Amino acid sequence: MRTFKLILAYDGTDFAGWQRQPGPRTLQGVFEEVLGRVTGAPVTVEASGRTDAGVHALGQVVSFSSETRLEPAVLERALNAELPDEMLVRKLVEAPAGFHARFDAIGKRYRYALQDGPQRNPFGRRYAWHCRHRLDAAAMHEAAQLLLGKHDFRSFETQWPNRETSVRTITDILVARRAGQGGDPFGPFSAGLHVEVAADGFLYNMVRAIVGTLVEVGRGAREMAWVAEVLAAQDRKAAGQTAPPEGLFLLHVDYPPEQTAATRNSQA
Amino acid sequence: MRTFKLILAYDGTDFAGWQRQPGPRTLQGVFEEVLGRVTGAPVTVEASGRTDAGVHALGQVVSFSSETRLEPAVLERALNAELPDEMLVRKLVEAPAGFHARFDAIGKRYRYALQDGPQRNPFGRRYAWHCRHRLDAAAMHEAAQLLLGKHDFRSFETQWPNRETSVRTITDILVARRAGQGGDPFGPFSAGLHVEVAADGFLYNMVRAIVGTLVEVGRGAREMAWVAEVLAAQDRKAAGQTAPPEGLFLLHVDYPPEQTAATRNSQA
Repeated sequence: MRTFKLILAYDGTDFAGWQRQPGPRTLQGVFEEVLGRVTGAPVTVEASGRTDAGVHALGQVVSFSSETRLEPAVLERALNAELPDEMLVRKLVEAPAGFHARFDAIGKRYRYALQDGPQRNPFGRRYAWHCRHRLDAAAMHEAAQLLLGKHDFRSFETQWPNRETSVRTITDILVARRAGQGGDPFGPFSAGLHVEVAADGFLYNMVRAIVGTLVEVGRGAREMAWVAEVLAAQDRKAAGQTAPPEGLFLLHVDYPPEQTAATRNSQA
Repeated sequence: MRTFKLILAYDGTDFAGWQRQPGPRTLQGVFEEVLGRVTGAPVTVEASGRTDAGVHALGQVVSFSSETRLEPAVLERALNAELPDEMLVRKLVEAPAGFHARFDAIGKRYRYALQDGPQRNPFGRRYAWHCRHRLDAAAMHEAAQLLLGKHDFRSFETQWPNRETSVRTITDILVARRAGQGGDPFGPFSAGLHVEVAADGFLYNMVRAIVGTLVEVGRGAREMAWVAEVLAAQDRKAAGQTAPPEGLFLLHVDYPPEQTAATRNSQA
């Protein structure tokens, strides 16, 4: 048995989320079907985490074991030739035996895309949340810093009580306005805001609840200090709404240095 | 009867083109249905030109006549409240009596979006043409300048002979590489090439045939001078393939200054 690790990008619009289900078209279901066809045997894969319906990824990490004798580069090309256009294997390498995309992950980074103003962007509806109010990105950024560090984030957790702790550590959080390109008022490349959050782990819907909360500050409905109150309340009802899935992108998953090094070596 | 002019943006992905047809979902069909509902009477609208299935617009221009007593700003808001998310009225104004979006147009500008390189972009597939070859944007730009000016463009016309002349004047043509944003290798905001063409009018599939021809130069299969040969041949078979529709955006339609001025006054 060999273990493989791969980085996957996908447009989640037309999938019922990552997790395989009987019936609906899911990312895991499609990926496993293609992988089974390419390797000639059924395979179960593990992702760093499940993404919900409509959520996208630029850097999802997936692991699996297989007896295939195909070289990683050959397997990568074969997968990309067979996968639907909405999915792309960006890199596939052989990983140390026992590598597990979910259990071994030590951190993740998400981006949430917002577009604001009275006119919706016909090209952004699959990839951003449209807020009719103009948002104050600087105020949102300052308020977001109140969430930095180790806290009990159950105010930003959709399914609480959960089986484990709601304590997580946010290592980086920022809100920035992104300039449009080429002077287009619209188009896939138009202006908006990005919220980026990196943490050692995320609770269910945590990024989307944080975004829904920061938007309250950005549109002027709440003061910045309110975000600290929400955090302290430890009550989901204290926070803002859960932002819709289409603005969310899983950017990156972190693993311990030794595994990253092992992965790098296996590429050489 | 009052005459109205409006600027329309749309994502053409899930429409069978502009022109109303019995059965398929078309942009004109959806727009007229909503406009009829908002004004309370059936309306036929005219666009500056028909766009094909999958083609997008940032600045399509549409005209129509109606007995509605609604103010333009009210009509604009009512339309945007009722139209699907894929369509947006960017501006609606009252126009001089007799204004006709197609007959009065004196020029148009299109953009064509390309993404190049071995890896496809899962987020670009609805809004760009993916070429597996790296493209030489500078060579494409230089070759494109051979098309500038007044020529018989029947080599770039899908349906020839047509009823009229194939002579058009290209007033501006450029090819430029667009930088990605935020270091994303993928994502809706990633890098690629733009081809922009402005002319006093366009033949059927003209931009897409020009792009298919310039790509032959960009990938090194043809010399720049070949583009002049294609133009001189006056034969569609001499040119490159017709680039697919999803990369094409109607950016802007020009009208004579007096009409533009009249339109501006009616906004005041």
